[in-house]
Amino acid sequence: MTNIEVKTRVKQYQIKIMIDSLHHLGTLVTKVWCARQVAVVTDTNVGPYYAKLVTDELTAAGFKVRVMTVPAGEASKSWSQVQSLIDQLSAAHFSRSDGVIALGGGVVGDLAGFVASIYMRGIALIQVPTSLLAQVDSSVGGKTAIDLPTGKNLVGSFYQPDLVVIDPAILVTLPPRMLAEGYGEIVKCAALVGGDFWQSLQQITSVAAILPAAPDLIAASVAFKARVVMADEHEQGQRQLLNFGHTIGHAVELLADGQLMHGEAVAIGLVQVCRLFAAHGLAPQAVAAVMQHDKKVHGTALTWVYLSAVGQPHLYPIAVTDLATWMGDLWSVS
Amino acid sequence: MTNIEVKTRVKQYQIKIMIDSLHHLGTLVTKVWCARQVAVVTDTNVGPYYAKLVTDELTAAGFKVRVMTVPAGEASKSWSQVQSLIDQLSAAHFSRSDGVIALGGGVVGDLAGFVASIYMRGIALIQVPTSLLAQVDSSVGGKTAIDLPTGKNLVGSFYQPDLVVIDPAILVTLPPRMLAEGYGEIVKCAALVGGDFWQSLQQITSVAAILPAAPDLIAASVAFKARVVMADEHEQGQRQLLNFGHTIGHAVELLADGQLMHGEAVAIGLVQVCRLFAAHGLAPQAVAAVMQHDKKVHGTALTWVYLSAVGQPHLYPIAVTDLATWMGDLWSVS
Repeated sequence: MTNIEVKTRVKQYQIKIMIDSLHHLGTLVTKVWCARQVAVVTDTNVGPYYAKLVTDELTAAGFKVRVMTVPAGEASKSWSQVQSLIDQLSAAHFSRSDGVIALGGGVVGDLAGFVASIYMRGIALIQVPTSLLAQVDSSVGGKTAIDLPTGKNLVGSFYQPDLVVIDPAILVTLPPRMLAEGYGEIVKCAALVGGDFWQSLQQITSVAAILPAAPDLIAASVAFKARVVMADEHEQGQRQLLNFGHTIGHAVELLADGQLMHGEAVAIGLVQVCRLFAAHGLAPQAVAAVMQHDKKVHGTALTWVYLSAVGQPHLYPIAVTDLATWMGDLWSVS
Repeated sequence: MTNIEVKTRVKQYQIKIMIDSLHHLGTLVTKVWCARQVAVVTDTNVGPYYAKLVTDELTAAGFKVRVMTVPAGEASKSWSQVQSLIDQLSAAHFSRSDGVIALGGGVVGDLAGFVASIYMRGIALIQVPTSLLAQVDSSVGGKTAIDLPTGKNLVGSFYQPDLVVIDPAILVTLPPRMLAEGYGEIVKCAALVGGDFWQSLQQITSVAAILPAAPDLIAASVAFKARVVMADEHEQGQRQLLNFGHTIGHAVELLADGQLMHGEAVAIGLVQVCRLFAAHGLAPQAVAAVMQHDKKVHGTALTWVYLSAVGQPHLYPIAVTDLATWMGDLWSVS
């Protein structure tokens, strides 16, 4: 078991990475929550696998459990699902002393986290991410969000959970494509950290090889992210590093119109950003790992982040008016 | 001019209480915000009086201003107004570097504050409260909220503004009933603080007498609330004191079905809570000022707060199962 301690300005909590932790969820939760009513928010993919186990575990530990299931898929990050969940909490007389557990991938974590952050101005939250991407990415850092027709994650909050429980054993039920998607996120972290973490990836030469290495890879990724988040909780500085691959990735994802998963689009964005900066001579072709600021433009420039070597990121602002030229260079070298 | 400094875990900002400050809003805002796009959220009561002045002031100071007007009244604290405002921000390409100014009473402050707290996970906010109640109450402490059919303020956030600008001069446009409503809130604060603040109220013997005393009364109330909020940002301890009169008040407000203003209902609640505790011999009849926890029940008890003397509050939990008996005592002595 790996315990990673996260300490933000408003909260201190642990991320527990442990094989079969879902089978000990009751014990783990009682360490941070007294007896209370708990809403387990899950989706139509994950619920059939794990909702009963989680309910049994929590009930045995003395919690009063109510499962709330949303349709699987990004479309559930919507106002209508937020209102539906909040209406269910209110109808069940949830008070500020009760809690929400997000049991699912990134969509469930973002949605349930947002709901927990605004119901009665915030009730207790525990994240139980079930996809590899969510385990290394969206369960760390307190970001919650829903989408608008005009863009992804345009409404949300920064809201820290009381506990994050990661069970690498449940990854065996994931389709290979989702393992690969999450692995892209691990590669991103390793490129930023460098050293042993980066070296350890050399042994992963197939999707099947991800599973046995998952506990260590997740621990290394989460530990890195926790460090970054602690240094910059509200994404004003260093946390921008984590948006590696996202500017191009978001555009690719949008244009793919649902045919690409989020992590796949970001992985494509990552590779293309590498080539973009390599084309401009800012990074050795051999390293080819570049990060950039998220879609948020500050003033008139996008701050991209590139690596001069693995583990050595730098900030590089590009004026919005110059972006087209830069992108042109990218396609011309491809 | 009175400047009150508020320092929370996540933000430090000033509350400026100054006659005619609305006529200097541009200058005041430039001290905390660089040039940006600004959404001035107001309502159909306040907008006709002050939206043009505020727009001119901000435009002259270099801001790009867009006025967003919601219908006056509690019904605007709704999901549909939240979505409408967020759609307007998104359509106007508001980024995280832009800002929202809430120009109005408590409804506008709660609604616009909530919108600012969740748009792009939070954009900058300035509160310009225009009613006496909002000036002494809802603009201090970072509480934002909307209502659900099942109850008031059931959805919201804690979100601190960058600045609060209070102009006592604009109170002259308020109807006497709204002045009295806000004054009830001042009496509450004075009872909690005691001393000179409480003594100063003895000179207010008519609604007309409120206006000339307003700058001092607002300053004393806001200074007290700022102290409490700084000690307990998320309402887990001392901040409960501020909910004085609210448990009975909310019930009275609900039963009055729109015939009573919020502050009027709370004032009634305050008086009745005094009598409740006086009936039980916990406070001298002469002091008769009692406070209680908000509608949130912790475990099985409501924590009421009563005064053994002006300026000397105490906590007193009453089991939910005993509430009916207590309330019966109240009506029997009334």
